[in-house]
Amino acid sequence: MTSRDGYQWTATTGLRQGVPSISVISPPTNVRSATEDWDVIVVGAGYSGLTASRDACLAGLKVLLIEARDRIGGRSWSSNIGGYPFEMGGTWLSWGQPHIWREVSRYQMRNELEPSFDFSRGVNHFELRTSSQGSSIFSHVEEVCASPHENYSALRPSIDPPKDALLAGALQKFVDVDGAMGRDIIPYPHDAFHNPAARQYDDMSALDRLNRLAQSLTPDERAVLESFILLCSCGTLETTSFFEFLHWWALCDYSYKGCLQHLISYKFKGGQSSFAIKFFREALATGRLSYTFNSPVQAINDHGDRVVLKTRDGRQYSGARLISTIPLNVLSSVMFSPPLSAQRTAAASIGHVNQCVKVHAEVASPNMRSWSGISYPFNKLAYAIGDGTTPAGNTHIVCFGGAHNHIQPEEDINETKKAVENMSPGNMDIKRLVFHNWCKDEFAKGAWFFAPPQLLSKSLDELRCRHGNVLFANSDWAVGWRSFIDGAIEEGTRAAMTVIEELRRPPGARSHL
Amino acid sequence: MTSRDGYQWTATTGLRQGVPSISVISPPTNVRSATEDWDVIVVGAGYSGLTASRDACLAGLKVLLIEARDRIGGRSWSSNIGGYPFEMGGTWLSWGQPHIWREVSRYQMRNELEPSFDFSRGVNHFELRTSSQGSSIFSHVEEVCASPHENYSALRPSIDPPKDALLAGALQKFVDVDGAMGRDIIPYPHDAFHNPAARQYDDMSALDRLNRLAQSLTPDERAVLESFILLCSCGTLETTSFFEFLHWWALCDYSYKGCLQHLISYKFKGGQSSFAIKFFREALATGRLSYTFNSPVQAINDHGDRVVLKTRDGRQYSGARLISTIPLNVLSSVMFSPPLSAQRTAAASIGHVNQCVKVHAEVASPNMRSWSGISYPFNKLAYAIGDGTTPAGNTHIVCFGGAHNHIQPEEDINETKKAVENMSPGNMDIKRLVFHNWCKDEFAKGAWFFAPPQLLSKSLDELRCRHGNVLFANSDWAVGWRSFIDGAIEEGTRAAMTVIEELRRPPGARSHL
Repeated sequence: MTSRDGYQWTATTGLRQGVPSISVISPPTNVRSATEDWDVIVVGAGYSGLTASRDACLAGLKVLLIEARDRIGGRSWSSNIGGYPFEMGGTWLSWGQPHIWREVSRYQMRNELEPSFDFSRGVNHFELRTSSQGSSIFSHVEEVCASPHENYSALRPSIDPPKDALLAGALQKFVDVDGAMGRDIIPYPHDAFHNPAARQYDDMSALDRLNRLAQSLTPDERAVLESFILLCSCGTLETTSFFEFLHWWALCDYSYKGCLQHLISYKFKGGQSSFAIKFFREALATGRLSYTFNSPVQAINDHGDRVVLKTRDGRQYSGARLISTIPLNVLSSVMFSPPLSAQRTAAASIGHVNQCVKVHAEVASPNMRSWSGISYPFNKLAYAIGDGTTPAGNTHIVCFGGAHNHIQPEEDINETKKAVENMSPGNMDIKRLVFHNWCKDEFAKGAWFFAPPQLLSKSLDELRCRHGNVLFANSDWAVGWRSFIDGAIEEGTRAAMTVIEELRRPPGARSHL
Repeated sequence: MTSRDGYQWTATTGLRQGVPSISVISPPTNVRSATEDWDVIVVGAGYSGLTASRDACLAGLKVLLIEARDRIGGRSWSSNIGGYPFEMGGTWLSWGQPHIWREVSRYQMRNELEPSFDFSRGVNHFELRTSSQGSSIFSHVEEVCASPHENYSALRPSIDPPKDALLAGALQKFVDVDGAMGRDIIPYPHDAFHNPAARQYDDMSALDRLNRLAQSLTPDERAVLESFILLCSCGTLETTSFFEFLHWWALCDYSYKGCLQHLISYKFKGGQSSFAIKFFREALATGRLSYTFNSPVQAINDHGDRVVLKTRDGRQYSGARLISTIPLNVLSSVMFSPPLSAQRTAAASIGHVNQCVKVHAEVASPNMRSWSGISYPFNKLAYAIGDGTTPAGNTHIVCFGGAHNHIQPEEDINETKKAVENMSPGNMDIKRLVFHNWCKDEFAKGAWFFAPPQLLSKSLDELRCRHGNVLFANSDWAVGWRSFIDGAIEEGTRAAMTVIEELRRPPGARSHL
C-alpha cells in the first residue's frame, strides 16, 4: 500500500507524492456503526496511541482508534521502496531506552537491530565544511575521540578519554555547568527537575550558553557544536532551551559517546513500521479494537458522562474516556469543549521549535557508506551520515537540516539536490530522494518535540494533566525520553493505565476474558 | 507482619528468626474452593510471578498465585525494622534496566530512588585489606578513577579516564579480549550470543582468564579484581563463567563506572517490597487474582487438557496453563509429569553457583556512611559499603561474602560479627545484624543466578522452552539482565504474553471488562 504521506524523486519519475509502506492499513476502517459506544476513544495512531489502544484492548476495554492519516506510526514510519526501509521520521533506538526496549523484548525483536554506522568501507572519514570553499577531512577517530582501540568501536561508549576530540571536547565545555558535566544539575535523567537548580537553565537558550563560552571555542569547535545542537533541536540557537539540551545529555549518560549510542546508532532492519505494526496487530487480535483512518478530528466535547468526538466530515463517536495523542503543535487545531486551560492553550500556541528537514539520498558510490559530514552554516542541510546500502548497491545517505536555514524540500527539488550535493561536493551522484516534509504536515507541524526556553519549566506539569474525561498522551510531554519513541510509549502506557483503572468493574462483578 | 524468613541480631535480643516486612500478605489466602478452575496457575510470587500474575489478571484471565513463603518478592524483599528498609536480597536498579524501569515509570516511582553511596561524610575512603595484618587506605577517587571533577560524581559514569584507577584498570585488562573492551565479542548486550565467537568464553572460568593475565596484574589489582568478580558471582573463581562476567560488563556499558551505576548505586527509599507490593495490589484490584501463600509445591502434572498442581500438604489446583517461576536451583525438588527434558534436568542438577552471604550491620559511627572496603581473601566477608543512615543515626553497612570462604551466618553469630569487624578493625561497633541466609533457603538454594562455565551455551535455550502447558519464567534464564529484577520482569512479561494469546477467546465471542 502507498501512503499519501511523503515524497519520492528519481530522474525518471521526477517528484511524486506518496510513499509505499506496510504502515498503511487496509481496509481503512472496521467500524460498522458509529452509534456504537466505546469505552475509550484514542485519537492518533502514533506510538502513544498504539500503546494506549493495545493496553486498553488487552485489558478488555472496547477501543476506537481514530487517525487522520492513512497509516499508523505518526511521526515514525518507514518506507518500503524496493524492499528498503527509508525511515521517514523517528528512527533510532537503544537498550538504554526503557519503554521502547521493553516492547522490543516483549515482541522478541532484540535481534532485529542493525547499526547505522559502518566504518569498514570506502570513504571512511568525517568531512567538515564551514563554507562552500572547501572541506576539512577528519578520521572518525578524530571526530569522536582520541586513541580508541579501533575505528569500529570508536562510536560505542568507551572508557577512553574523548577529551581531545573535536565535537566531544566542544560538547564538554558546553554542558559543564557544574564542574560535573551536568551530573549534579540533572542527577536523575528521568526526573530532570529533581534538582530545582536545573530550572534556571530553562531560562537560557543554547545561544545564551554559547555566548558565555565564546572565548573558549575554536571556530571548528563552534561550528560542529552548533550543528550538533541544531541536529538535536532543529530550531535555531535562540529558540533551543539549554535545559532541554542538558536533559538529552543526561539521558545519554553525560557523554558524547552516549549521545551517539542512544541517538543515532541502532535501527530496525525492517524499519520502524515493522515494529509499530506489532502493536496494531496485537490490539486487533483481541477483537476489541475498532479503528478508522482518514478521519481528521474537528472537535472533542466532554459531556461529563460521555466524550463525543466529531470528525471534520461530520461523523460522531462517543466513549467513556478519550485519550488524545494530538501533538503539541497541532493541539490548537481541534476544538475542545469545555475549553482547554489557559496554560495548556498558551503552551500549544507557543509550540515546540523542531522544524527538521530530513532527506534521504541514494547515491551511486558504495564507498560513501562510511562517510559522515557537517556543512554548516552556509548549507541548507547541515548534518549527514551514511546509513545503509540499498538493494541496488548504492549508499543511502540521511541528511538533516532545520529552522536555521530552512527549506521546504518538495518546493524546489533542484535546491534540495544542491543541498545534498553540497554536503560532499563531487561525491553525491543522486539516484533517488525520499522525504516527508514534517513542517508542512498539518498533523505534525514539526518533527520531534524540542522545547524553546521556559516552555517546560512553566507548562510541563500542565501538559501532563487530564481535562475531565480527556487524557493527554504524547512524547512531547513525557518525562523520560521526551521527544523519542520511548517517550511516546511511556505516555501511552500511562494513559491506558489510568483509563483501565477507572473503567474497571468492581471486583464483585467478575467477568472473564 | 513478620516473615518467617530472615534473621535479626541485637545485643539485647540475641539472634532471632523472622523479620518484619510489608511483603507479608494477610490473610495468607483468598481461595475459597480448591475445586475452582483457573486459567493460569502461577507458581512463585517473586517479580517473575508477580509480573505474570498481574499481566494475566489485567488481560481478564483468572489467576491462581501459589507461593511457598509467607510473602511476595522471592529473592528480593526488604525489612521494615523501625521504619528502616534493609534489603534482604535484590536491591539496586537503574534507568538503564528497561523492564524494571518501565514499571518504575508506570507506577510513578521515578522520584522514589536514592543513592547508596554518599561520599560527603566522615570516613570518606576505600579500605583494602588483603591480609589480617593491616589496611591500605585509598580515596574513593583512586578507587574509581583518576582526576574526576569531584568525589560525589566520581561514582557516576564519567567521561574522564579511569585508566589509572586500581579496580577499573584491573577490570579493563580482564575484559579486553578483543582490543575493544568486549564490545566486539558482545556488541548487543541483550542478545549476548549475537557474535558466535562469544561462546568460546563460556568454556572459560574467571580463573582461566586470570591465569592468562597473571603477569600483568599487581597484587593489589589482583585482590580487588578477584573480590569484584566474586561479588558478582558469589561462586569461586573456578565456578564463575567468564562469558557471563563479560555479559554483565556489556550490560554495564563496558565500563567500571557503568558497573557501579547499574549494579550498586540506586535503590528504593522505601525498599524493594514497596515496589513489589504494587504489582500484587494491582493484580488483586482486578478481582481476578486468587492466591495462597505457605503452599510449597510437590508436583505439577500436565494432563494435556489441564495442568494439576499438588501442594506438599495435599491440596490440588487445576488450570489451563501453569507458569513456573521456580528458580533453577530448586527445580529438581518438584516432580513434573510428564518429566522435564533430560537437558533441563541436567541443567537444574548442575545449577547456578551463587552462594552469596549478604549481611547488614548497623554500626555506631555515623562517619562510616562514606566508607567502603574489601577484605580478601582471608576474611569471611569480602566486600562492604556504607549504604544508609538508620533512624538511630547509626551507619548501615552492607557486607557481601560468597562460596570462596563461606559461612552460614546464623550458625555462629560471633563468627559473623567477627567477619564484619574484620572489614575495618576498630570501626565496627555493631548494634544490629540483619540477614537472610539464601544458601540454606530451600526455596532459593542460592542468591541471584550466576552461571558456571558451559551452562549457558549449552542450556539457555532449553531453559527458556515451554513443556506442554507449563511455561517457565525466571530471571535465571532471562536474556537481558539475567540474574536481576529486570530479568525477572522480562520473563514474567514473556510468559504472560504467551498465555494471554493462547487463552484469548476468538474475536467473535466479544466480552467486556
